[in-house]
Amino acid sequence: MPGVRVTGPVPTPPGGLFISFEGPEGAGKSTQLARLAARLQAYGQAHAVTREPGGTPLGLRVREVLLDPSLTIDPLPEFLLYSASRAQLVRHVLRPALERGEVVICDRYADSSLAYQGGGRGLDAALLEQITREATGGLTPHLTVLLDLDPAVGLERAARRGQPDRLEQADLDFHRRVRQAFLTLAAADPTRFLILDATQDQDTLAAQVWQAVQARLP
Amino acid sequence: MPGVRVTGPVPTPPGGLFISFEGPEGAGKSTQLARLAARLQAYGQAHAVTREPGGTPLGLRVREVLLDPSLTIDPLPEFLLYSASRAQLVRHVLRPALERGEVVICDRYADSSLAYQGGGRGLDAALLEQITREATGGLTPHLTVLLDLDPAVGLERAARRGQPDRLEQADLDFHRRVRQAFLTLAAADPTRFLILDATQDQDTLAAQVWQAVQARLP
Repeated sequence: MPGVRVTGPVPTPPGGLFISFEGPEGAGKSTQLARLAARLQAYGQAHAVTREPGGTPLGLRVREVLLDPSLTIDPLPEFLLYSASRAQLVRHVLRPALERGEVVICDRYADSSLAYQGGGRGLDAALLEQITREATGGLTPHLTVLLDLDPAVGLERAARRGQPDRLEQADLDFHRRVRQAFLTLAAADPTRFLILDATQDQDTLAAQVWQAVQARLP
Repeated sequence: MPGVRVTGPVPTPPGGLFISFEGPEGAGKSTQLARLAARLQAYGQAHAVTREPGGTPLGLRVREVLLDPSLTIDPLPEFLLYSASRAQLVRHVLRPALERGEVVICDRYADSSLAYQGGGRGLDAALLEQITREATGGLTPHLTVLLDLDPAVGLERAARRGQPDRLEQADLDFHRRVRQAFLTLAAADPTRFLILDATQDQDTLAAQVWQAVQARLP
């Protein structure tokens, strides 16, 4: 039927390398992600770069809705919208790229929902984890770079870049809970997470990221 | 924090009467819904009319996305988008209206997701029911009018109204599964469901709806 493809469960692909970048606004995710992509390019490694929410035509539409400051969005619908974008991304972008054996770099992934909608907005962690398992088909990054930053510093950096969006306007306590949730997720999965102090200079951070990625390349 | 309201679980409200209309495209839901609203108006009964997806600023944006024929939307993200719209509608429209003791009439509600994304698209019913319980906080209609119709007749009626949207283009087998799912839901909850043969004339249908509603008015 036009416009709808029925897909089955999403198994973790055998090849490829899935890397996510996580952390607060202003931590330098975009910069480090671009530097990693440039390194992979120079290294001759096929790779794809995507982001959440977004990454598919549906995801881009959902992104516009989520970041529209004129809309009231309660925590649960907010989480469901992120999950919808994520489910589409997994099936149409992440899994196909990994099945081609590519390196896929994603600017935010499921950990952001667990940290923002769970830790930040207070939704039940078990519920979020269950819906996330369904949305992702269990697809988890091989490496998650957490750019850790004091929220006060991150918000100041983000504000310098221009008009804050809805998330950036949220208060400091919220961002402190989000940071704590990220650190708790990282502590529970130390093999997957690389926690970096985002106040370090960009060259130092890029070298640390590249070291971790290179160790995981086939 | 601007644009986001943290709300707790949604208890079933003590007052009010929640009526949903369900059935395939072209069954005459909109007509019967408008006639019921006119009856309630004449009866002096405060009431609100809304629809899914939609009914809130967020829901209207989600509706545009869901009904855009240019977008590919997989079954699970589709369900999550409907659920996001529904969760916002329950918290901002349905529950407040019911708490004011109003009659609320909704053009489609959770049964549509169970029938279309479950029966039609084949998503796991238990998963859909669980996420629906979370999205609605357990809020269930007191009366659900199911306008039952052979899909072949319904699609022909819808096509006569103009350009078919994404759902209306879906094939006949899909709509047969949806019809069966609606009938199964109705059979499981005969107190809540009023199944009407939608091929009857509009006056007859309106009289049957009004009889069922009047019996449930305070």
